[in-house]
Amino acid sequence: MDSISFENFTCPIPISKNDKVVIGHGSGGTLSHNLIKTVFYQHFDNPILAEGNDFAELPASSKRVVTATDGHVVDPIFFPGGDIGRLAIAGTVNDISMSGAIPRYVTVSFIIEEGFSMQELMQIAHSMQECAREAGVQIVAGDTKVVEKGKADKVFIATAGIGFIEKDFLINGRQAKDGDVVILSGTMGDHGIAVLAARNELGFTTKLESDVAPMNDLIQSALEAAPNMHVMRDPTRGGVATTLNEIALQSHVNIVLEEELLPVNRQVRAACDILGFDPLYVANEGKVIFISPENESQGVLKALQAHKYGKNAAIIGRVEKPTNTPMVLMRTKIGGTRIVDMLSGAMLPRIC
Amino acid sequence: MDSISFENFTCPIPISKNDKVVIGHGSGGTLSHNLIKTVFYQHFDNPILAEGNDFAELPASSKRVVTATDGHVVDPIFFPGGDIGRLAIAGTVNDISMSGAIPRYVTVSFIIEEGFSMQELMQIAHSMQECAREAGVQIVAGDTKVVEKGKADKVFIATAGIGFIEKDFLINGRQAKDGDVVILSGTMGDHGIAVLAARNELGFTTKLESDVAPMNDLIQSALEAAPNMHVMRDPTRGGVATTLNEIALQSHVNIVLEEELLPVNRQVRAACDILGFDPLYVANEGKVIFISPENESQGVLKALQAHKYGKNAAIIGRVEKPTNTPMVLMRTKIGGTRIVDMLSGAMLPRIC
Repeated sequence: MDSISFENFTCPIPISKNDKVVIGHGSGGTLSHNLIKTVFYQHFDNPILAEGNDFAELPASSKRVVTATDGHVVDPIFFPGGDIGRLAIAGTVNDISMSGAIPRYVTVSFIIEEGFSMQELMQIAHSMQECAREAGVQIVAGDTKVVEKGKADKVFIATAGIGFIEKDFLINGRQAKDGDVVILSGTMGDHGIAVLAARNELGFTTKLESDVAPMNDLIQSALEAAPNMHVMRDPTRGGVATTLNEIALQSHVNIVLEEELLPVNRQVRAACDILGFDPLYVANEGKVIFISPENESQGVLKALQAHKYGKNAAIIGRVEKPTNTPMVLMRTKIGGTRIVDMLSGAMLPRIC
Repeated sequence: MDSISFENFTCPIPISKNDKVVIGHGSGGTLSHNLIKTVFYQHFDNPILAEGNDFAELPASSKRVVTATDGHVVDPIFFPGGDIGRLAIAGTVNDISMSGAIPRYVTVSFIIEEGFSMQELMQIAHSMQECAREAGVQIVAGDTKVVEKGKADKVFIATAGIGFIEKDFLINGRQAKDGDVVILSGTMGDHGIAVLAARNELGFTTKLESDVAPMNDLIQSALEAAPNMHVMRDPTRGGVATTLNEIALQSHVNIVLEEELLPVNRQVRAACDILGFDPLYVANEGKVIFISPENESQGVLKALQAHKYGKNAAIIGRVEKPTNTPMVLMRTKIGGTRIVDMLSGAMLPRIC
């Protein structure tokens, strides 16, 4: 947050939810301080933020620091199951967690279009704080810029996170090994299809909700069952297919999926059938791909299925020695094998 | 950076500087990987980024971790003395440095308008890397989103940084004390007026350049002279006046400036006279306000003046006991005293 001293700063012009964001709210002056105090500080209240410096000093719980960043431009900003605020916090919490780190701190940078509704901004701040509380992270620093009407689309939020690896983990995209088991924590494509439905692009209504959620608690359960976990990654933009291709390339292995084991929500399957999408390429915001040694895989599966965010977890495939080029393959229901490529081009723009 | 494995990933469609950014470059699929490899990885090349995970693991040099974030929406994106890329890296390096920390790592999040010039994006990436090299930081993680034409203005960049406090410093906005000396590292308002000139809003031409620069090396020199430094802060949006008001509020002190000691470039003064601006409120991007105990202040001044970014450093005032409400005062050239308020409203939108 820009320097702010809350205890001694009084709001000369209180902000109401009926107000609109004006250019002056990004000036760094009195109006900015007002906005920060009335909207952000109100929600993100914590002692580190309240220090009121341009930086935040954070105690480290280990010398293995992990960071990650994400920009969020989802359209619409409110959708069934979440909003851009929940997405922004969960997205960064999840990226940090994929290393085995405990996420602790998040920074937020808002780019707001002049004229944006103050009430919606308050709703988003509320939603960010709810997600931060669920994930056990603190929002420790931030920044607000305002651009002229028509120069941005409502609000964009960039987040960065900090976490600490406190155990002896070595978990990253390069660790997948021949014989490992690939586990997906739940159904594919819920987020992408829910956002599409919110844009009225489906041509029919659905009760489907986005799966957007912080995955750190689920991941802790999995790591207790599998301390030798090799890879964890969240299949966001580009979906499960693209994420597995990245891992295959990084680890120089083949990944072989079993089509009939892939968990897909009935509504997502129906929407995909109609639209000609493959759920393997549709974005998720509350799912994790785990790649673990075979002897720990059943433990992971049980741990996931016992967690509220992992009820539909399934083993979906195996890691094998690479052919010439590392690739993702799928054994289809009718017994064939096909190559599963990385997403090319843009299937669904502004999905996150 | 989204997961990328460079050694095994080949660009199916090489990117040329004559290309435009398309929606697919933000998809997370093949086109995104292409963009990241051709543009960002080309410039930001370092082993941590090359790991290709959604997170970056960073060795910590102390358990006092410092973070900060900033969004950049400057218009125009190229201006005399710098561009949005240099601004984005320097801004975060500077915020981190104000704590006494050594900045080490930066994350970058791009929000790009469809149709943006690939050549300009490459120029910006180059400029970011140049600034990172100067500051001694590594760009360790990033994200790229693309929005439809007309939904953003060319490119916005949010950065976050990580640094470590390696000495026994306690430097923040609450530490200013009665009797302390206020030192400014150089002339006021250069950045704001240079950007205004680049927008052709001055009505006359000027050779003025923005002062945008990483301040960490200058700060190290100052800290060697003043290990008991109390406050450091960069007077960006809102200028010196707003920043000093923040510090006065945080530390519950008065700050008394001497008008005749305030360093202002002749061209900035001329532009401000014509436009009716006060240089005290115009943004800087390469200046630091130091507040140090009196006995260390001469050492700070000498150290600054010996540095390329501190040639015009000057003692500009003193910290005094507060009256009822903490405030910033100025003794004018003609012997009067006036209150210097915080900036209210927006003087210059999109200055950073």
